[in-house]
Amino acid sequence: MSERSSFGPVEVRRQVFDTPFTFAAGTTLPQWELVYETYGTLNADRSNAILVCHALSGHHHVAGWYADNPKNVGWWDNMIGPGKPVDTNRFFVVGVNNLGGCHGSTGPSSLNPATGQPWGADFPVVTVNDWIRAQAQLADALGIEQWAAVMGGSLGGMQALQWAIDLPDRVRHALVIAAAPKLTAENIAFNDVARQAILTDPEFHGGHFYRHHTRPTRGLRLARMLGHITYLSDDQMAEKFGRKRRPDAGSYGFGVEFEIESYLRYQGDKFAGWFDANTYLLMTKALDYFDPAEPFGGDLAAALAGARAKFFVVSFSTDWRFSPARSREIVNALVKNQHAVTYAEITSPHGHDGFLMDDGYYHAVVAAYMRNIET
Amino acid sequence: MSERSSFGPVEVRRQVFDTPFTFAAGTTLPQWELVYETYGTLNADRSNAILVCHALSGHHHVAGWYADNPKNVGWWDNMIGPGKPVDTNRFFVVGVNNLGGCHGSTGPSSLNPATGQPWGADFPVVTVNDWIRAQAQLADALGIEQWAAVMGGSLGGMQALQWAIDLPDRVRHALVIAAAPKLTAENIAFNDVARQAILTDPEFHGGHFYRHHTRPTRGLRLARMLGHITYLSDDQMAEKFGRKRRPDAGSYGFGVEFEIESYLRYQGDKFAGWFDANTYLLMTKALDYFDPAEPFGGDLAAALAGARAKFFVVSFSTDWRFSPARSREIVNALVKNQHAVTYAEITSPHGHDGFLMDDGYYHAVVAAYMRNIET
Repeated sequence: MSERSSFGPVEVRRQVFDTPFTFAAGTTLPQWELVYETYGTLNADRSNAILVCHALSGHHHVAGWYADNPKNVGWWDNMIGPGKPVDTNRFFVVGVNNLGGCHGSTGPSSLNPATGQPWGADFPVVTVNDWIRAQAQLADALGIEQWAAVMGGSLGGMQALQWAIDLPDRVRHALVIAAAPKLTAENIAFNDVARQAILTDPEFHGGHFYRHHTRPTRGLRLARMLGHITYLSDDQMAEKFGRKRRPDAGSYGFGVEFEIESYLRYQGDKFAGWFDANTYLLMTKALDYFDPAEPFGGDLAAALAGARAKFFVVSFSTDWRFSPARSREIVNALVKNQHAVTYAEITSPHGHDGFLMDDGYYHAVVAAYMRNIET
Repeated sequence: MSERSSFGPVEVRRQVFDTPFTFAAGTTLPQWELVYETYGTLNADRSNAILVCHALSGHHHVAGWYADNPKNVGWWDNMIGPGKPVDTNRFFVVGVNNLGGCHGSTGPSSLNPATGQPWGADFPVVTVNDWIRAQAQLADALGIEQWAAVMGGSLGGMQALQWAIDLPDRVRHALVIAAAPKLTAENIAFNDVARQAILTDPEFHGGHFYRHHTRPTRGLRLARMLGHITYLSDDQMAEKFGRKRRPDAGSYGFGVEFEIESYLRYQGDKFAGWFDANTYLLMTKALDYFDPAEPFGGDLAAALAGARAKFFVVSFSTDWRFSPARSREIVNALVKNQHAVTYAEITSPHGHDGFLMDDGYYHAVVAAYMRNIET
């Protein structure tokens, strides 16, 4: 068995596309770029390529680390690497930053050629379908006709599902992890509060904060604090923080007092320090819009009728953002079509964040599935 | 059977207390006031009085309406009135606005005698225990030695529980509805995001926005939007709003598009238009601090050992803010003490808001309990 260690060091690559890209929203980019990373070696048949799609705050740096910054380890490094569940000794793995992102691909902080200024809020609202079309062009550029697998967690899992629907001949396996076939009203509600926090921040300046040399950090911080509540499970919060007070806390005031407050504020501050507010808006909107069944009258089975991939659907027992019941909706729609589907419900205390965790059983299940993917 | 109609018209009363009140936080008010309303007639024995405690955004206007504003109907008018579950033909019902409130009782917008300016953020953080002590002084002023019942929903139910613990000889029945024995880390987390939204609003001015002739409406609006998500059930949101779009909605933008967004923003705007931000902070902090078991090493049964009231505990099936499991914690602690307790778990689609709804079965159960209270 291979040593279970990190891939890396890795390098960020950049692909420039000179063919115009038209978003579902209507806007056309004459030229655009995607940043990506690769891990492992593409085989002679080009049949061992795996695309990893990122979630709301993710990016192309999925595994490994950088020679000039070894502490910057990829967000799914525990899953992807030599001897890991997604074994880079067998597979050629591609991580990509999506259009609209804030990690190097064309997005709101890129220059709008029409104005010479950053796009800001004028960057088109981007959909999961848009991302699939953009990722397909990256696949073309890399000479990958068909992915061995497309995989992702949360919004990333939704992209894997959309790939199987939109480009059925180009994906052999779809790994749909901690996802849902569409957002509920409650999911949308949480996203809208987060968006309103950003949009009403006086430093947002209608999305053109770049030119005001400021950032809507207050709104972004609130959005992230709120998001974090939905990523964790009630039980995990109870166990990790409960009603514990900070040792240095005052009382009868509005400073940090409970440990959970300290944790959330820290997470919010950290995130607000680097993430782009316009990207946050775009990502939440892509989530809200995602509903592959909509063009089929709400019938998810009909939406999936043309899919040709085999599916691996994974949910986490304490995930209340996209609960196991939501994953089972996907499984049921696949079963109705007699598509091949493997479903695993992982018992985990980590809520929605379970998909990112280094959990032995979860990883063993993914590893078992991946071993059975032929290359 | 009495006609089932609204009490009223009613009048707001005001009680001025010239005895100093010292908060758990340490601050002393030399003089303070409570506004309250009463419905029904106190009997000769003064044995038919019921105190209704309000929740986060509630107040003393519990039932009836005002002669000069008949549309301003009390927040629990469906529960309290002639022939209603809490029958004002039998009972003398008292509604009170708590200290720290924004409806007339001494609170953050009252003048701080030390400065001649509104208290603002300097108003002491107030606890449930403080409220019980203040309400007891109102009972003294009204000549009520012992309440036939103290009742409330949510934070109001917590006050009913605390009454039974703190002043066991002064309450014969405690109706603890849609409450919990303490907040979880997740509950506190939601409150802290709401508080941070207010505290970081540039119009908050450290809580002294009154003197700046402004109000932190952006933060208050976000706090209320977030609160609303936790008051409703996922199922109810799905049924009422689902993924429905506004008929006049644009698309691919950040305006109102989904019905749930319209609803939440409307609720947020409405609330932000009138509620006091400092009161919101105080109420959420009172919730966070509430933990009657804490002085008893976390043992709720020990906290309730000295209680002499009979208890009526009610929960709602889809309440995820304070779920039925949380009510059962209270019931179990009472059973351990062999205290008299009646427990009803109401099947309701309305989530935490269930306690405010005009639900026939719920009201029948409350009515049955109330009929067995001797006066």
